[in-house]
Amino acid sequence: MLISELETPAVVVDLDVMDQNLSRIAAYGRQHQILLRPHTKTHKIPELAKRQIASGAIGITVSKLGEAEVMLDAGITDMLIAYPIVGVSKTTRLAKIAEQAKIMVALDSDEAARGISAAAMRQGSRIGVLVEMDVGFGRCGLGNEKDLLALAQTITTLPALEFKGLMFFPGHFSVGPEERSVLRTKVNEFLDRSLETFYRASLPLAIVSGGSTPTAYESDLFHGVNEVRPGMYIFNDRNTVAISAASLSDCALSVQVTVVSTAVPGHAIVDGGSKTFSSDRFQGEGGNGFGLVKEDHSAVIERLSEEHGHLNIERSERRYRVGEQLSIIPNHVCTTINLHDEIYGVRGDQVETSWRVAGRGKVR
Amino acid sequence: MLISELETPAVVVDLDVMDQNLSRIAAYGRQHQILLRPHTKTHKIPELAKRQIASGAIGITVSKLGEAEVMLDAGITDMLIAYPIVGVSKTTRLAKIAEQAKIMVALDSDEAARGISAAAMRQGSRIGVLVEMDVGFGRCGLGNEKDLLALAQTITTLPALEFKGLMFFPGHFSVGPEERSVLRTKVNEFLDRSLETFYRASLPLAIVSGGSTPTAYESDLFHGVNEVRPGMYIFNDRNTVAISAASLSDCALSVQVTVVSTAVPGHAIVDGGSKTFSSDRFQGEGGNGFGLVKEDHSAVIERLSEEHGHLNIERSERRYRVGEQLSIIPNHVCTTINLHDEIYGVRGDQVETSWRVAGRGKVR
Repeated sequence: MLISELETPAVVVDLDVMDQNLSRIAAYGRQHQILLRPHTKTHKIPELAKRQIASGAIGITVSKLGEAEVMLDAGITDMLIAYPIVGVSKTTRLAKIAEQAKIMVALDSDEAARGISAAAMRQGSRIGVLVEMDVGFGRCGLGNEKDLLALAQTITTLPALEFKGLMFFPGHFSVGPEERSVLRTKVNEFLDRSLETFYRASLPLAIVSGGSTPTAYESDLFHGVNEVRPGMYIFNDRNTVAISAASLSDCALSVQVTVVSTAVPGHAIVDGGSKTFSSDRFQGEGGNGFGLVKEDHSAVIERLSEEHGHLNIERSERRYRVGEQLSIIPNHVCTTINLHDEIYGVRGDQVETSWRVAGRGKVR
Repeated sequence: MLISELETPAVVVDLDVMDQNLSRIAAYGRQHQILLRPHTKTHKIPELAKRQIASGAIGITVSKLGEAEVMLDAGITDMLIAYPIVGVSKTTRLAKIAEQAKIMVALDSDEAARGISAAAMRQGSRIGVLVEMDVGFGRCGLGNEKDLLALAQTITTLPALEFKGLMFFPGHFSVGPEERSVLRTKVNEFLDRSLETFYRASLPLAIVSGGSTPTAYESDLFHGVNEVRPGMYIFNDRNTVAISAASLSDCALSVQVTVVSTAVPGHAIVDGGSKTFSSDRFQGEGGNGFGLVKEDHSAVIERLSEEHGHLNIERSERRYRVGEQLSIIPNHVCTTINLHDEIYGVRGDQVETSWRVAGRGKVR
């Protein structure tokens, strides 16, 4: 089947570009002896998680229990749930998953640690724990080495838990290279203090788990980091390119859309809106636009209704026709894929395969 | 089951408030002899579409063919697809739906009209057509009465189509009451010119289909409008309240979340982010925040990660604990529901029912 024969909107992945992205990060990991545990929240597709493992990842990262269950069903048995699991019902699910798989979780509170310990003890399973550091993003994580050590020491006293190390998410690194360098110096100071504190307390850190796609290829510059959790690198997107973490030719994913109206002068409307692309903003200069039209970089996707993409084509030389297809690179691949039940793998102009987004919508 | 026993995040609908919202609009329609064809893109749930019909709606509106197919499967047989259906594969699906249901579509181009006519002719079905006017939003629709008449006259010559009237979407009316009044004067001038043009051409307008929730209770002020397509009124949301189209007590839908981290001073993190609420912005003053915490109006949801809601609680007196539940009114109900496979109907503190979001993700 030709790509142009797909009903639109349709999310398509260029398999050659994806394979290049997978190989490149694997080579980087080998070169720097950094283990790769990709975050599968980007695609939520077991088949792609298995490709990541086949190309050198030691396991995967997920956000939610429901995603872990989907991956376990597909036979993946080494997972980090990089999210605090809270509440009896959820910790019980976690402990059940841990009966069948090697599971770690990240957390930053006594409450979360005690709840998970109790559930794992009831279930007779064991769960690895990474204590989360806040390195400046201000989301989850403890902000100083004393609190990190105190929580880690508590964990070592709790039954059915195994303290494994530290985790951080440098979410504030989605900026240009110079700013990243300044931020990294601060993170390294915190890492140095933490490594020293744990060394003095004779509490070994088997794992120090670092960043995501924006810092993936700088992971060797973070002190002590021996494992990373990039997600978007498998596809990349308009925002990854904006922060110089990839080039346009590294973008494996795009959305095929059809022009459905040209009635309003200077505008063209395509059949994908916020329920196809999500409303996630552009993080690059100006913050404008909800995607990049591959066929016409002078078109601006100036607004998204739920089912309409509003192209401003006032500065374009191109003539738009109702019925023609366009290809759009989204601002953010993760939230885009999460809106689709199925996505397609393509090579050249041919549709080669399709995957069900089995982990989509697993909010719990 | 108690609401507090639901795993979070969980979308819950207060059935009493929803029933009031349904009754109020039905009473308004009866009072002004305006027919109600609610837009089910808000909920995408056949059971709720049936409640809308039971409470006085003459049929429903949908955005996409996939939504129409889901509603048809549930036995709903009077639908407007308020979207241009383009391409052979889609027009064939449309023509098949029209074999089993009374179907209208909206469009604004010769290309769309001819494609639908050809498919309906092949299939032996008949399809009603509304020609879309652009009343100022600048999305779909023709902007002057001559173009409207020309397209309508073409439609009357095409086989298997039945010209039914005009449709408009006042998407730019999501503003305060005074601005709405100014905008309405302009729309009425265009409506007057169009009504006169069609009258002189002896082409009757059986239907003039007007606005959405922001203008729902002002529909009688639009000249000639005899049918409306509100969607959000069934639940309302933070944005509906911001533009004075509802009050907080009319908000039937909220999302139960759990606090999962309080490690960062001045902040609390809940287990719903952009994959639970969507990234849709606040349209009210300041544009700040991604939802309203019902228990604490001084908390600001200042950012959404994919699975984390970042509450800034610096100005709050409330003490936040890991493990406690909160209830959040989203900025935009439509895009929120579209992220969930199932939502719950509640009364008081009890979960009374649940509905599968059967039309969710039907992007085609």
